[in-house]
Amino acid sequence: MNKDIFLELLKNKEFKAVKSILDIMNAVDIAELLSDLDDKELIQAFRLIQKSKAAEVFTEMSNSMQAYLVEKFSEKELMDILDDLYMDDTVDLLEELPANLVTRILDYVDPEKRAQINTLLNYPEDSTGSIMTTEYVTLKKDTTVAGALAHIKETGIHKETIYTCYILENRKLRGIVTAKELLTRDDDVTMEELMKTEFIYVTTHTDQEETAKLFSKYGLLAIPVVDKQGFMVGIVTVDDAMDVMLDETTEDMELMSALSPSETSYFETSILTHAKNRIGWLMFLMLSATITQTIIAKYESAFAALPLLVSFIPMLTDTGGNCGSQSSTLIIRGLALDEIKFEDLFKVMFKEFRIALIVGFVLSITNGIYIMIRYKNPTIAFLVGLSLIATILMAKIIGSILPLIAKKLHFDPAIMAAPLITTIVDAGSILVYFSLATKLLGLA
Amino acid sequence: MNKDIFLELLKNKEFKAVKSILDIMNAVDIAELLSDLDDKELIQAFRLIQKSKAAEVFTEMSNSMQAYLVEKFSEKELMDILDDLYMDDTVDLLEELPANLVTRILDYVDPEKRAQINTLLNYPEDSTGSIMTTEYVTLKKDTTVAGALAHIKETGIHKETIYTCYILENRKLRGIVTAKELLTRDDDVTMEELMKTEFIYVTTHTDQEETAKLFSKYGLLAIPVVDKQGFMVGIVTVDDAMDVMLDETTEDMELMSALSPSETSYFETSILTHAKNRIGWLMFLMLSATITQTIIAKYESAFAALPLLVSFIPMLTDTGGNCGSQSSTLIIRGLALDEIKFEDLFKVMFKEFRIALIVGFVLSITNGIYIMIRYKNPTIAFLVGLSLIATILMAKIIGSILPLIAKKLHFDPAIMAAPLITTIVDAGSILVYFSLATKLLGLA
Repeated sequence: MNKDIFLELLKNKEFKAVKSILDIMNAVDIAELLSDLDDKELIQAFRLIQKSKAAEVFTEMSNSMQAYLVEKFSEKELMDILDDLYMDDTVDLLEELPANLVTRILDYVDPEKRAQINTLLNYPEDSTGSIMTTEYVTLKKDTTVAGALAHIKETGIHKETIYTCYILENRKLRGIVTAKELLTRDDDVTMEELMKTEFIYVTTHTDQEETAKLFSKYGLLAIPVVDKQGFMVGIVTVDDAMDVMLDETTEDMELMSALSPSETSYFETSILTHAKNRIGWLMFLMLSATITQTIIAKYESAFAALPLLVSFIPMLTDTGGNCGSQSSTLIIRGLALDEIKFEDLFKVMFKEFRIALIVGFVLSITNGIYIMIRYKNPTIAFLVGLSLIATILMAKIIGSILPLIAKKLHFDPAIMAAPLITTIVDAGSILVYFSLATKLLGLA
Repeated sequence: MNKDIFLELLKNKEFKAVKSILDIMNAVDIAELLSDLDDKELIQAFRLIQKSKAAEVFTEMSNSMQAYLVEKFSEKELMDILDDLYMDDTVDLLEELPANLVTRILDYVDPEKRAQINTLLNYPEDSTGSIMTTEYVTLKKDTTVAGALAHIKETGIHKETIYTCYILENRKLRGIVTAKELLTRDDDVTMEELMKTEFIYVTTHTDQEETAKLFSKYGLLAIPVVDKQGFMVGIVTVDDAMDVMLDETTEDMELMSALSPSETSYFETSILTHAKNRIGWLMFLMLSATITQTIIAKYESAFAALPLLVSFIPMLTDTGGNCGSQSSTLIIRGLALDEIKFEDLFKVMFKEFRIALIVGFVLSITNGIYIMIRYKNPTIAFLVGLSLIATILMAKIIGSILPLIAKKLHFDPAIMAAPLITTIVDAGSILVYFSLATKLLGLA
C-alpha cells in the first residue's frame, strides 16, 4: 500500500475508498500505516477499520497512539475494543498507559476480568506470569475427540490459541492433546487415551527468557504455566516467546556495547534519554582508564628516551580489545544458547589459551616483519612481538572467564564484554609492554 | 533425567529399564542424553527408542552422531527412519553428511521423494527454498469444512503442520484457511467463503532472514512459499524461522566482534578453525593501526617535551571506541529489526550529533575536574577536554553512518561495528589531540 495515496484519500474525505483499503490490509500493516497520521486523522481512520479487526490493529499500535485513542474513544468504542482484546494484550496496555486512562479502562471491564487483570499485573516484570495469557482450551480426561471438537467449536473462537488443549483434573494439569491429534483421531477416543502425560511446562515465576528458550529448543507453539501450588493458570504462545527472544537479544547487544538497555526503539527514545543511557558506562570506563594512565605516567622516562615506543600503544591496546571482544562474545552467546556452562570454565580457559598462542604467534611474526622493514630494529620487533603475545593471552583468558564468572554470580554475562575487558586488558598490556621495554632496552 | 543413572543402566545392559526411561522422555532431551554416549552405546540406545519417536530423535542429533548412525543402520532401519523424516529435515541431513552416506540414503528413497530432495538441495544456502518443507495441506475452493476435516484426517498425519491449509487453483495459491476456522465453523461452509485472500507469502529466493522476520512481525505459524512462476511449492514453519533468527543473531554478534562467523558451536569448533576465524580481522585491524602509529610518530617531539600527554592516549581512544560502539550497535540492531532505514541517514546523524554534544560535554567536565585535582594544569584540562569532545563527535557520527552506508551497499551492516570504528576513530582522535596540543602548548 502506498502511504501517500492513503493519506491523500483520507485528507479528501474519500472514506469509502479508505475503508476498502483498510478492509483488505492486515492488522500489522494498518498499524504501521496509521503511525504516520496526526491525531485527528488517526481517530478518523481508526473508526473506518472493520470491527473484527479493530482490536488487533489496536494491539499492534505504539503506546502513545493507544493512549490517544483510549482518551478519545466513546464509551461504546472502548467497550468494543476491550471485549475483543486478548487478556495478555490488555495487561500490556495497562502497564504502559498513564494512570488516569488505566482507571478509565478498569471502569469498563467486568469484575471477573478485572480480577484476572490484577493478578497478571502483579507478576514481576521479567517473569513468565507477565507474558502469559489466561485464555486457553481445557478439557477433561473422559472427554472424547467428538466432545472436544464440539467444545472447541462452541468456545474456542475467543481463545488465543486452540492448537493445544490442556487436560485438567481438579485444576491440575494432567496431560496435553494437540489439535492435530483431535483432527486425525477417531471420534470416540478419550483424552485420557490420547493425552501426552510427559510435557514441558513452566511456572509463573520462571524467567521469561528461560521460557522463550524452551520454544526454540523443543519447537513448541505454546507452553502451559502453573502456579506455585501446581494449578494451571495460563499459557505462553510462540508469538510472545519470539518477542521476548528479540528483546533479550537487543538487551544483550546493548549491554555488550556499554549501553544501558532501553525499552523503546531508537527514534522513540529522546536525545536526553539516549545520552543518559550512554553516559553511565562511558563515565565508569573513562575513570577506570586512569589506572592505565597512571601506569603510563610511571614510565615517562622510558619513552622520553625512546619516543618510538609510544607509537605502538594504540595497536597493542586495540588488538587486546579486539581479542578480548572475540572471546567474550563467543562465551556470552554460548551461555545465552545454553551451549556453554559455568562448569566448562577450565575447558574454555585451556581452549582459549591454545587459540591465543596460535593467534599471538601469527600476529607477532607479521608485526615483527613490518617493524624490521620499516625500522630495521630487531630489539623493538622482539619487544612489541612479545608484548603482543602477552596481551593476546591476557585478553583471551580474561575475555572468556569473566562472562562465565558473571553468570555464576547471577549477573548478566553480557556486561563482561568488549568495553570492560578492553579497559582491564589495556592496563595489563601497557604494564607488560613498558616493563619489558625498560628491561630489554636498558631504559629506566 | 539423571545422566549417570541412565549410563549406568545402559552399561549394565538393563535394557528394559533404559527403554522405559526413553519411552517417557521427549525427543530433544533424548538426543541431548545420547550425545554423551560412545559410538557403541549410541547405536544400542538408539535401537531402544520407540519407532514413533526415533526419527524425531534422529533429527535433533548432531551431524557426527547422525553420520555414525546412517553408516551403522541396517537397510530396514535406514528406510524406517527416512520414511518418518520430514522433507526439510531429510534435506538438512543430506547437506551435512559425507558423500558416501548421501549416496547410501538416496539409494533408499523412492524416486518421487528423490526428485523433491534434489530440487530442495539446489536452492542457495541462505534462501527460503533451503529451509522450506514441501509437506503441507492443500484444499480446493469448493471443499467444505466437513470435507476439509475429512481430508486432514486422512492425510494430515504425515504433514509437518496442518494448522494452516492452502487453497490452490491450478497449483496457484488463492487463499489460506486456518485450522482454527475449520474447527469453529459450520460443516457446509466452503473454503471459498472462508479463505483469506490477502495473505503474507514469500518466494523460494527470498532471503531466509527476511522470511524469519515476517514470522515475528505478523505473529505467524507458517508462511507459504511460491516459485518464480507463482506456483506454490512449500511452506516455512515457525520452528525453522526461530532457528534462522537465532543463527542470524549469532552471526551478527560474531561479525560485530571481528569474528568470521562459524557454523558450529564453540566446543564443536577446533582450535585451528577458531584461530582462523579470528586472525583475519585481527590482522587487518592491526595493519590498519599503522596509520595511527604513523600519526603518533610524527608528534614525537611534542611528547618528548611533555611526556604527560602520552598518558591520556588510552583514555581518549577507548572512549572513542566505546562511543562508536554504542552508536553502531544501536543502528545495526535498528536495521536488523527494520526500525531504521537508509533514508533516515540525516535524521540519525543529527540525532547522534546532539547526543554526542551532551555526552562529550559531561565527560569533558568530569575529566577536566580530575585533571585539575591531580595535575592542577588548566591548559592540559582544556586540551584533553576539547579532544574528548571532538573524539566523541567523530565516533558517534562515524559509528552511526557506516552501518547505514554498508546496508545501502548490500554489505552486512554488522561489519561496521566497534572494532573497525575504533580503528578509524583512533587515527582521527590522535590527530586532533596532538595537533591541538602543539598549538595550545606551543610545542612543535
